[in-house]
Amino acid sequence: MRAVVLTGFGGPEKLEYREDVPDPQASPGEVRIRVGAAALNNTDIWTREGAYGSSEDPSSTTGWRREALRFPRIQGADIAGRIDQVGSGVPDSRIGERVLVDPMIYTGGEEELVVNDYVGSERDGGFAEFVTVPAGNALAVDGPMSDAELATFPTAYTTAMRMLNRAAVQPGETVLVTGASGGVGSALIQLATVRGARVVAVAGAAKQDQARDLGATAVVDRHTTDLVSDVETALDGRPVDVVADVVAGPAFGSLLHLLRPLGRYVVAGAMGGPLVQTDLRTVYLKQLQIIGSSFGSHEDFAQLLGHIAAGELKPLLAQTFPLRDLGLAQQHFVEKNFFGKIVVTPDE
Amino acid sequence: MRAVVLTGFGGPEKLEYREDVPDPQASPGEVRIRVGAAALNNTDIWTREGAYGSSEDPSSTTGWRREALRFPRIQGADIAGRIDQVGSGVPDSRIGERVLVDPMIYTGGEEELVVNDYVGSERDGGFAEFVTVPAGNALAVDGPMSDAELATFPTAYTTAMRMLNRAAVQPGETVLVTGASGGVGSALIQLATVRGARVVAVAGAAKQDQARDLGATAVVDRHTTDLVSDVETALDGRPVDVVADVVAGPAFGSLLHLLRPLGRYVVAGAMGGPLVQTDLRTVYLKQLQIIGSSFGSHEDFAQLLGHIAAGELKPLLAQTFPLRDLGLAQQHFVEKNFFGKIVVTPDE
Repeated sequence: MRAVVLTGFGGPEKLEYREDVPDPQASPGEVRIRVGAAALNNTDIWTREGAYGSSEDPSSTTGWRREALRFPRIQGADIAGRIDQVGSGVPDSRIGERVLVDPMIYTGGEEELVVNDYVGSERDGGFAEFVTVPAGNALAVDGPMSDAELATFPTAYTTAMRMLNRAAVQPGETVLVTGASGGVGSALIQLATVRGARVVAVAGAAKQDQARDLGATAVVDRHTTDLVSDVETALDGRPVDVVADVVAGPAFGSLLHLLRPLGRYVVAGAMGGPLVQTDLRTVYLKQLQIIGSSFGSHEDFAQLLGHIAAGELKPLLAQTFPLRDLGLAQQHFVEKNFFGKIVVTPDE
Repeated sequence: MRAVVLTGFGGPEKLEYREDVPDPQASPGEVRIRVGAAALNNTDIWTREGAYGSSEDPSSTTGWRREALRFPRIQGADIAGRIDQVGSGVPDSRIGERVLVDPMIYTGGEEELVVNDYVGSERDGGFAEFVTVPAGNALAVDGPMSDAELATFPTAYTTAMRMLNRAAVQPGETVLVTGASGGVGSALIQLATVRGARVVAVAGAAKQDQARDLGATAVVDRHTTDLVSDVETALDGRPVDVVADVVAGPAFGSLLHLLRPLGRYVVAGAMGGPLVQTDLRTVYLKQLQIIGSSFGSHEDFAQLLGHIAAGELKPLLAQTFPLRDLGLAQQHFVEKNFFGKIVVTPDE
């Protein structure tokens, strides 16, 4: 089959488009999916670069589980397509079923989720014509969206769902969302709005209208020299109950400062820099919570499918590239001059 | 009356023992207490030094509310004694009642607790012959303990109680306690043990037996060069569910590293240094929670009184000084060569 293979930690040159990769076969309990579309995530880039460090050595080269990765590896976690083969134990009737993949491979509770296998990282993913996953991770979908549109959802939206669930965001609360034009950021705006929260988004000047269209009631320029003052002005004295952050970096201190006493800061990424200085006096005197969140659980994914089925979410498909141009797509992705998600499709 | 008056931010020279301070009078709704004993807390030292900074400027000079303090001020939060005067609206029958003071002056819920007045900080405290407090903050106590013993409890134990409550420590969980020989640390050992948790204490070599006597099932030397390895050895592979920290500083990263996935780190002080570097990747990939906690609520204080009445807690009275020697007592306090609490008494 055709696939893009990651040959080691490194730059885009480690991505090789090949046409002679053996077709994967569905093992017992698995299904094979003919990929319709697969979306890009920051995780793809971080994993390629080995940029996760370890808890003892922030600069060591690791994948998201902070251990070595096995190469060659086909990345691509967010997959929509149709089942074309089933392994033993899976009913033949599933062949032909249209599915969206829950990319978190684990059984058990949320402790197991922390050490799960992630499609495209610990096992091959969707930047290919075919992919295999456990049958339970391929969930039937229906409705008017294209495969490319469906592929915009899995990782970003379950990550965002879990952030909101771990921070226990309530209707009527005010949530500050950073990185609002990115995959998780735009998911946070939509999902927080759906649950009745008020969203203030931090976004680049060119993307503020889109953030408003998704439901943000106020938008602050991410290049501001005074984030605190801009947010306070935008909120007209209303306190920030929750910060949902995927950027961190130099703004971290301001984000904690903006929180009301007993406010919650939930983080699922740190594109602006993961190493931050924290004044623990701010944390304990204001009695804040800093909540780490990562990939969503199966329950979060199921909740997401419910919102999709109910037509409550707008797919944010920025651009589609052919599979062979994945390197180009990643280059476009890291430049961040788009809103929503970038998808590749194996169609010729 | 006799009292020790803090005249401004600074060193011990800012503490003045005086015999001509006007007796305070109980205002409406208040009681006046003849002080039997008052205990020392780190807050006294930090407040005297103005060492709380602000969330925008870590080095600015402030009290615990991170704002200016009004001088002269009589410090001393933890007070046991007898009511000797009541203000209007308070029944005369309370005169003569033996009481322990809940030093957190606020009404409402936990959001108000964050901006409470703290006895000895925003209003005069117990380093004096007399003190006034709202009648509801003077709670009747009985039993065999001396005033000096009772005074060991309020701030440290309600702070510890709130830490355990905010981290939702469950029976059977393993809690790592730092600063185990200090006021809050030794309170954490006792209170966590009472609720059925397993405690690993970090303490200086000279204080490990005392930590064990209080209930710690394992003790690690705080001067170790490899905290992670020592704790792992002491626990024989059992995971750390909760870290209850009042030290922070250079050990912060190791403490997060020791937590199991989805573990909780709760902090109520940072004697080892409040400015810490955090690798947010560790926080979000392990899905940790960093929980700020501060003074306990009225509910925490009531829970504490219940444990005292039930005889479940051992008072840890290290030493008693006469009031006029408060400066000496503080000097002894900061040297940390004791276990438990230091108390002053206005007896001549």
